[in-house]
Amino acid sequence: MKIDDNFYMKLAIDEAWKYQLLTYPNPAVGCVVVKNGEILAIEAHKEAGKPHAEVNALKTAYLSKYPNDVLKTKSSSHDIHDYLIRNHNNFFEDCTIYVTLEPCNHIGRTPACANLLKELKPKRVVIAHEDINKEARGGCETLKSANIEVSIDCMKKEAYELLYPFIKWTQGTFIFYKMAQTLNGSIDGAISSHIAKAYVHTLRDKIDLMLIGGNTVRSDKPTLDARYIAGRAPNIMIYSKNKVFDTNIPLFKVPNREVIISDDLFKLLDYKFIMVEGTYNLMDKLKEKIDYLVLLVSPKIRKGVNALNDLDIDFKIVHENYIGEEKIIYLKRKG
Amino acid sequence: MKIDDNFYMKLAIDEAWKYQLLTYPNPAVGCVVVKNGEILAIEAHKEAGKPHAEVNALKTAYLSKYPNDVLKTKSSSHDIHDYLIRNHNNFFEDCTIYVTLEPCNHIGRTPACANLLKELKPKRVVIAHEDINKEARGGCETLKSANIEVSIDCMKKEAYELLYPFIKWTQGTFIFYKMAQTLNGSIDGAISSHIAKAYVHTLRDKIDLMLIGGNTVRSDKPTLDARYIAGRAPNIMIYSKNKVFDTNIPLFKVPNREVIISDDLFKLLDYKFIMVEGTYNLMDKLKEKIDYLVLLVSPKIRKGVNALNDLDIDFKIVHENYIGEEKIIYLKRKG
Repeated sequence: MKIDDNFYMKLAIDEAWKYQLLTYPNPAVGCVVVKNGEILAIEAHKEAGKPHAEVNALKTAYLSKYPNDVLKTKSSSHDIHDYLIRNHNNFFEDCTIYVTLEPCNHIGRTPACANLLKELKPKRVVIAHEDINKEARGGCETLKSANIEVSIDCMKKEAYELLYPFIKWTQGTFIFYKMAQTLNGSIDGAISSHIAKAYVHTLRDKIDLMLIGGNTVRSDKPTLDARYIAGRAPNIMIYSKNKVFDTNIPLFKVPNREVIISDDLFKLLDYKFIMVEGTYNLMDKLKEKIDYLVLLVSPKIRKGVNALNDLDIDFKIVHENYIGEEKIIYLKRKG
Repeated sequence: MKIDDNFYMKLAIDEAWKYQLLTYPNPAVGCVVVKNGEILAIEAHKEAGKPHAEVNALKTAYLSKYPNDVLKTKSSSHDIHDYLIRNHNNFFEDCTIYVTLEPCNHIGRTPACANLLKELKPKRVVIAHEDINKEARGGCETLKSANIEVSIDCMKKEAYELLYPFIKWTQGTFIFYKMAQTLNGSIDGAISSHIAKAYVHTLRDKIDLMLIGGNTVRSDKPTLDARYIAGRAPNIMIYSKNKVFDTNIPLFKVPNREVIISDDLFKLLDYKFIMVEGTYNLMDKLKEKIDYLVLLVSPKIRKGVNALNDLDIDFKIVHENYIGEEKIIYLKRKG
C-alpha cells in the first residue's frame, strides 16, 4: 500500500464517517496530524457545538508528546484555541495537517480554525474539499497569507461523499431511509442488537422529522422516541391517506412532539434533515426523493418476511462501518 | 483514535485480508514497518511461492528512503534476502516491525524470515499470533536470541480470524460458501460486476475442489472454469442422488478436470480447500460443515428469486472489503 497524502487523508475521512449524520447541522469532518512522518492524531468533529476536527486533532497531537501538559484539562473550543496559541512553542512547525474540509474562517459557536492554524504555523495543510458554506469560506486564503503551504483537492471525491449530507441539508433537504435486515433480506421480528438500536435512537435525537407509513403505525404501534439514549423524541409525519388513528397509542403521547398525518410528500421540503423508517412500500413512494439508504445488516440468515417487491433502485456504497457486531452500510441513490 | 501498537497491527491485518484465501496453501500475512514513528511500508504475502509479507515490507521500507537503490530490481525472495543482508547498513536498527504471524523459522520455498530479521536487527518486532505450523515455528526464539525486543499477542483475536482458514486447511478441510446477491437478497439473473466475477475465478483457480448442486448443473449448465483470469479450472463434485447428467455440457468438456457425481459429503474430507457455489438449499445440507460464507453484495434492489427459506444460521463478520463497487463480506459460521 502506498503511504502518501491520500493514505493520511483516508484516515481522516474514515474517522469523520464515524460521526456522519451525528454532527447535524454541521458537516462531518476529520483531521490527521503528522509530525516528521509520525502520525500523532486522528480525530473528528463529533457534535455541533463541540470542538471542530482540527481542534481535537491539534490537542491530541500536542498531548501525545506532552501527556501531562495542562492542555489535557481544556475541553471547550475557546479554551483549547487560547491555550494552544499561547503555548504551542513552535510544536507544529514541522507538522502536516490533513483535514477533510477547508478550515472554517469565521467565528461561530467556536473560534475560527483557519486563524488557529495561522498562529500555529504548521509546515503544510492538506485539504480534501473546499468549504461550500459562504460564511465559513476563505480558510485557504488565511493560511496562505501566513505563508503556510496549502494543498487542496486531495481525495476530493471521497471527501465530497462525506460532505454530501451537509451539502444537501444546507441547500435544502437531506432524506435518508433507515432499514434493518438480516443477510438474506428478512425484516421480520427482532433484528438489531441493543447497540444498533441505541445508534438509531441517537439519529432520532438529531433529525428534524421522522417519516413513517400509516400501516406501520396501525400495526406496530411504535413509540418512535429516543429513550435508549435519553434523547429528544423527533417530530413525526405519518404518511397516510386515511387520517384516522388511535391517538391513545404511545406515539401520540410523547410530550412536546408534533405529529402530522398527511399524504403530501411536498411537506418534507419544509424540513432539512429527515429520517424515514418503514418497509419497501414506503420506499417505493419515496424512491426519487431519498438521498441515502442507511442499512443495518445483522449477520444471520432468518426465515421471515422479505422486503422484496417490484422496486428497482441502484445505489453506490459510500461507506460502511461496524456497529457492534453488525454492519452499517451508507448507500447513496444513483440517479 | 488511539495510535498505538494495535493501530499499526490493524493496518497489517487489513492489508493481509486483501489476499485472504488467495495465498493457499500459505496463510495470509501482513507486515508494517515503522521507523522512528514514520510508517514506511504496509505490505502482505500475496501468493504461495512469492515473497512473504516481511520481505515485501522490508523491501518497500528501504526503497521509501532510497527509491533508486538497485534493490528495486530484486523480486525473488532469495534475491531480496541476500541483498538486504549485505546492504542494510543498519537501516532497520530504529525500526519496529509489525507482523500478523510469527516470522517463519524454516527454509521452505523461500528463506526464513526470522533469520533475515535477525540479521537486520530491528529495534522491536511486534507479532500478533504465534505460528501454528510445527515446521515454521521458533521465529520468536530466533529473534530473541539476537537481542531483538519481541512483543507477542498484539491483536491476537483479530489475527486468529485472519489465520483461521490456514489453520483449518492445515489441520483438515476449509469449506467456504460463495454467494452473490443484491441488497434485498435477490439471487436472480446477472448480479455481479466483471471485477467480482474475475475475483471468483481467481478463487476457483486456487481451490482443491468446487462443490455444486445437481439441480444447478442441470438448469444453468455452467462451465465453472477460471477463464476470466486464464486460470486453472477446478475439479468439481456435483452433489446429486441422481447420477445421470448430460455430459455434453461444457462443464464435462474441460481438459484435465476431474468431475465426481456423489451425494456422499464425507468425500469432502479428502480435500483441504473447498468452495461451494449454489443456493441456500445446498447450504441447508452443508450448514454444519461450512466455515465461511463469502458474500458478494451488489448495491442494488432488484425483483427476483430470494434465497430465503427455513434456514436459521448465525454468523460473525470477520472482515469486509470492496471489490470494485461491490462489497465482499467474510462471514464465519458461529457454532
